[in-house]
Amino acid sequence: MKTLPLAKAFMLLEPGPLILVTTADRGKMNVMTISWHMVMDFTPRFALLTGPWNYSYKALVKTKECVIAIPTVDISRTVVEIGACSGSDSDKFEKFGLTALKAKSVRAPLIGECLANVECRVVDHIRKHDIFVLDAIRAWEDDGRKERRTIHARGDGTFIVDGRTIDYRELMRSRLPPGV
Amino acid sequence: MKTLPLAKAFMLLEPGPLILVTTADRGKMNVMTISWHMVMDFTPRFALLTGPWNYSYKALVKTKECVIAIPTVDISRTVVEIGACSGSDSDKFEKFGLTALKAKSVRAPLIGECLANVECRVVDHIRKHDIFVLDAIRAWEDDGRKERRTIHARGDGTFIVDGRTIDYRELMRSRLPPGV
Repeated sequence: MKTLPLAKAFMLLEPGPLILVTTADRGKMNVMTISWHMVMDFTPRFALLTGPWNYSYKALVKTKECVIAIPTVDISRTVVEIGACSGSDSDKFEKFGLTALKAKSVRAPLIGECLANVECRVVDHIRKHDIFVLDAIRAWEDDGRKERRTIHARGDGTFIVDGRTIDYRELMRSRLPPGV
Repeated sequence: MKTLPLAKAFMLLEPGPLILVTTADRGKMNVMTISWHMVMDFTPRFALLTGPWNYSYKALVKTKECVIAIPTVDISRTVVEIGACSGSDSDKFEKFGLTALKAKSVRAPLIGECLANVECRVVDHIRKHDIFVLDAIRAWEDDGRKERRTIHARGDGTFIVDGRTIDYRELMRSRLPPGV
């Protein structure tokens, strides 16, 4: 994993991909699959929605840290399987053969099999709505990998894979944030 | 536009597409382009992030109503152009040749050129973070149209078009919400 400038890290979540979120509570790592998230600022700041029904929730509340990992289509089945079981009765890193890499600023691990990883701190927890507000503090990218297509949950058990890219930079030049 | 069951309406935002949001304040319609949104519940409930820097913000705060419209790739250039100008100095419906259709439960209009439209009420406004919490109350779909591929903002002026779909329904059957 190579450093990704923080100014570009919002671009990982902006297109709405299915993501993995890792936590570590007293040495016990866990990982969950989430598609309920959004960008809140270019700094970058993100929102995640999760509640007590998720095993990772307690670790997130307690440690106030996590890593957002961006999987691509080559591991899509694993990502869906991660989302369909609970960390309460298994070690998901072992079960799914995920490589936990040491992060620099948080205890939650990076995932070696993912395209990118973002180390985050919980800066607010809006309990009324189960929204976590996260500030990214460090980002990593596996820039050598060829497969970069992310997946998008449709909510019915089917998933959309990234298709072609359209370039409208000339229309948006005056509105783009610095550093992208 | 044909009625879309509310239980399926979360599927419109779950994959993270670029969306249009319409408002109407004392007869003045407006429309903005947004990619900072997420699903909050299957009911469905959505979160949108927008603030005073958007002309639609005032109408959203005042009327507590909007329509979320889902555009597809055939009008992607228009959607980007809508996002690159302000309703403060122009009528965007007229400027971009959009067809405003009458909604049933809100004053904000549906957009005839979009794949789907969701009538929403603002049920909370988390001012500290500029998050609007929306409950969908009615949904519409242009089920006759052939083009159904949505687009996803990358944040740098380029956009990803939906590609192929992968079916993992057999892995997720026990975890799917009712009605999808």
